[in-house]
Amino acid sequence: MTEEVVQYLRNNREALLNRLYDFLSIPSISTDSEYKEDVKKGAEFVADYLNEIGFEQVEIIETERHPLVYAEWMKAENAPTALFYGHYDVQPADPYEEWVSEPFQPEVRDGRIYARGSSDDKGQVFMHLSVFEAYMNTVGELPVNIKVCIEGEEEIGSENLTKILKNNKEKFAADFSVISDSGMVESGQPTITYGLKGFTGLEFTLKGPSSDLHSGMYGGAVRNPAMAMAHLLTTLKNEEEVVMVDGFYDGVEELTDEERKLIKEVPGEDFKASTGITDTTPEKGFTAKEHTMTRPTLEINGLYSGYQGEGTKTIIPSTATAKITCRLVPGQDPDRIQDLIVEHLNHHVPNGVTIDITREPLSAKAYKVDPNHPLVQKAGDSLTKAFGKETVYVRMGGSIPVVELLDQLYKKPVVLLGFGTPEDGLHSPNESFPLESFDKGMETIVYYWDSVTK
Amino acid sequence: MTEEVVQYLRNNREALLNRLYDFLSIPSISTDSEYKEDVKKGAEFVADYLNEIGFEQVEIIETERHPLVYAEWMKAENAPTALFYGHYDVQPADPYEEWVSEPFQPEVRDGRIYARGSSDDKGQVFMHLSVFEAYMNTVGELPVNIKVCIEGEEEIGSENLTKILKNNKEKFAADFSVISDSGMVESGQPTITYGLKGFTGLEFTLKGPSSDLHSGMYGGAVRNPAMAMAHLLTTLKNEEEVVMVDGFYDGVEELTDEERKLIKEVPGEDFKASTGITDTTPEKGFTAKEHTMTRPTLEINGLYSGYQGEGTKTIIPSTATAKITCRLVPGQDPDRIQDLIVEHLNHHVPNGVTIDITREPLSAKAYKVDPNHPLVQKAGDSLTKAFGKETVYVRMGGSIPVVELLDQLYKKPVVLLGFGTPEDGLHSPNESFPLESFDKGMETIVYYWDSVTK
Repeated sequence: MTEEVVQYLRNNREALLNRLYDFLSIPSISTDSEYKEDVKKGAEFVADYLNEIGFEQVEIIETERHPLVYAEWMKAENAPTALFYGHYDVQPADPYEEWVSEPFQPEVRDGRIYARGSSDDKGQVFMHLSVFEAYMNTVGELPVNIKVCIEGEEEIGSENLTKILKNNKEKFAADFSVISDSGMVESGQPTITYGLKGFTGLEFTLKGPSSDLHSGMYGGAVRNPAMAMAHLLTTLKNEEEVVMVDGFYDGVEELTDEERKLIKEVPGEDFKASTGITDTTPEKGFTAKEHTMTRPTLEINGLYSGYQGEGTKTIIPSTATAKITCRLVPGQDPDRIQDLIVEHLNHHVPNGVTIDITREPLSAKAYKVDPNHPLVQKAGDSLTKAFGKETVYVRMGGSIPVVELLDQLYKKPVVLLGFGTPEDGLHSPNESFPLESFDKGMETIVYYWDSVTK
Repeated sequence: MTEEVVQYLRNNREALLNRLYDFLSIPSISTDSEYKEDVKKGAEFVADYLNEIGFEQVEIIETERHPLVYAEWMKAENAPTALFYGHYDVQPADPYEEWVSEPFQPEVRDGRIYARGSSDDKGQVFMHLSVFEAYMNTVGELPVNIKVCIEGEEEIGSENLTKILKNNKEKFAADFSVISDSGMVESGQPTITYGLKGFTGLEFTLKGPSSDLHSGMYGGAVRNPAMAMAHLLTTLKNEEEVVMVDGFYDGVEELTDEERKLIKEVPGEDFKASTGITDTTPEKGFTAKEHTMTRPTLEINGLYSGYQGEGTKTIIPSTATAKITCRLVPGQDPDRIQDLIVEHLNHHVPNGVTIDITREPLSAKAYKVDPNHPLVQKAGDSLTKAFGKETVYVRMGGSIPVVELLDQLYKKPVVLLGFGTPEDGLHSPNESFPLESFDKGMETIVYYWDSVTK
C-alpha cells in the first residue's frame, strides 16, 4: 500500500513539480500591502488544491489582514487525528538585484529549485499536499484523520492565527501536530528538531542634546549618545558572550554530559565555512553547537547614531538607537526576560542621556518535546528509511511562534519534520530547495502517516 | 577720521544690507557639484565688490574645484600689511524642510538676518568689505596695507587654498592675518579667540560573517559585529570621559590654576539651555568649560550596523561601522594621534571579527597665539569700544584648518576677530546673524584697522 503511494509520487513527479512552480510564482509577500491580492491568490491556490484532493470543509477564513486556509478529512476510523500546519506567505525578495534568476519565476539549477518560498515554506507545504493527493488517488483514503491549517501571516508574526486558534480551540484540536518549516543540520542528513528557542525583543534610544551638535564647540561638555550606547551595550553582554542581565539565566536547565555528548556527535558544518567568520565565539564554557542549540542568546540586530554618509561630519549625534532580541530556552519566560532587560537598561543608562524603550510586542516561549516520544521516533525512523541515513535529534536556535502556541493550547506533541538544508538561503536572495529533499521528503511523509497508525 | 568712516557705515546701512542680501542669495554650496556655477557667482560677487572698492590686482584664481579670490591694496606707506582671510562658500541647506524662511532668500526676524551663510562666513566677510568701502569713500585710502584672500572651499577642507598658499608663499605674506570666522561666547559679549583645537579622524568597520545571518541559527556561534563594536568603542574612552588610548595625552600642557580661574570667569551659557541636555559630562577633573576650551576630545560622529527599519529583524549583522574624530590641543600632533588610535584599535579588536580602518586625510594642528600680543590686545580693545563691554579672551573647541596653515607657513599672529553668537545655528537649519553684530562688528573693524597703525 505504501509502495503504491510512493510510486504515484514518482510517476507524477513532473506534473507535481509544475504545479509547485505555479504556487511559487505567486508573490505572496505578507509584509507588503501592495501584494495583498497576491497573498489572497496564494490562499486560493491552497484551497483549490485541497478541494481537488478531496478534503472536506475547505474554508478560506478571512482575517483583518491575510486569510488562513482550513480543511479537514476525518474519515479514518480508530485512527488518530493530526493537525498539519504550514504557511503560504513568503518574505520580500529584496535585495532584488542579488537574485540570479527571478524570485517568482522558479528555475532549477544544479539540482535545486530557485524561488522565494521554495524552502520557506511553500515547497514544504506543497510536499504534504502532494502526499495527500497520492494517498487519495491510489488507496482512496488517508491513513489518519487530518486537519489542515495553512496561514498567510507567518512571516509577519502569526497575529491572526493566534486569535483564531484561541477562539476556535476545539475546531483545530488534534492528537498531535506536524510541521515542516525547519531544516536538517546538513544537506542529506535526516534531522528531527525536538526543541526550539523562544523569543523576546526590544528597541531603545538614548537621547542626548536636542539636535546634532558641533563636536568642537560642545565636545567635552555633552555626553555623546553613541558612546553612551556603547557603554550601555557592553553592560548587557561581556566579551565572553555571557549575558550580564541579573536573573537572565534563572531557571535555565544545566546541560548534562550526555546532552553534550549527543550534541558533539551531531554532524554538520563548523559555522566557519558557511559564514566566512574567522573564529566561533560561543559563551564561556560551551561549544558553538552547545550554545546555538541549548543556551539563550542576546543579539544586537540593529544599531545607529549620527552621520552615515561618505567622509566626515564633525557632530555629536543627538540620539543613538539599538534593536536587540533574545532567543530563549526552556525555563525562561519571555515577558520576565523583557522586564529584566528593561530594568537593567534603566539602571545602567549613563548620566547625561535619557533612555526611551520600546518593547517588541511579539514573543514566544521555548519549546521542547521528548525526543523519545513514539510519534517523534516514528518521524525519525521515516526519515532514516527515506534518506538511507540515521536520523539525528537536535534542538535548534530558531523560533517558530506557532509551535509554542500549539504546545500551550493543546499540550500535545508537535512533530517538526523539516526538509530544508543550511544552503537554502531562507529570507535571503536566491532562496532554493534541493530536488533531493523534495523527492525523499515526500517519501518520508508517506512512511510517517503510514507508521503513526501502527 | 575714524568717526567719518563709522558715520558712512551708519548712513549707508540700508544699501549695504541690501547688497549683503544679494550675496546671501547666491547658493554657493561647495560640497555639491550641482551648485558649481553658483559657487562661481559667489567668487564673482566678491571680485566685483573688491574692484568697485578700489582694490588692485583683483584676481579670480581658478583651481581644480572652486575659485579663490585674491586682491591687494598696498599704498599705505610705513604701515604694516594684513592678510584678510574669509570664505564665500556655505554648507548645504538640508534638512531643508526645517527652515522657517528660504535659506537663500534672506529675511530679517527679531533683529536677526536669517539665511545660509549669514554668520558662516559670508556675513562676516561682507562686513570687512563694507569697512574697506567706507574707508575708500571717506578718507580715500586704507590705514594699512591689505591682502585679501577669500576662498570657496572652506566647508570642504580648503584643499586648493592649501596648495596655492604653499606654492605662492610670498604673494600672500603679511605681518599678521585677520579672520572673522568664529564667534563670541555669548550674544553681546565681545570675545577674542586665542586658541583653536586641532583635528584628526578615522572610520573603521568590523567585519563578521560574510552576510547578515539568522540570529536563531547562528546566535551563540558567531561574534556579533555590533556588540564587538560596542566593546571596542568602550576601550577608547571610559565613562569618566577619559581617552584610554596609550599616549593620547602625551605633550598636553597642564592647565594652570590661573587658567582655570580665567576660564571660570568667562561668561556664557552652561551648555544645558542651548542643548537640552540634563547634565554636562566633562572629563574627570575638569569642568565642562575647561574641557571644551583646553582639553582634547574623542567623539563618535556616526555609528551603524544591521537593521534600521521599523520593528524587528532577527539578524546578526554582517558589519558595524564607526566614524570618530578628535579635537586636539597644543602639544598633540594629529598624525601621531591618528597612528596611536589605529594601533589601539588593531590591538583591541575582539576575536571573531576583523577590522578595516580608513584614515581621514584632512587634519590640523591646534593653534594658540599669545593673548597678550599687542595686535591681539588691540583687537580686544576695539571690540570693547564698539560693544561697550569688556572683551574676554578664550580658547575654543573648534578647528579652522587655515589658521594652523597660516601659523605654520608664516609664524605671524593670526587674529581671530569673530562676531558670531552661540544662537547663530552654523551648519544647521535657520542659520542667522544678529543685526547688532553686523553694526557693532563693522565699527570694531574700523577701530581695529585704525589702531594697528598707532
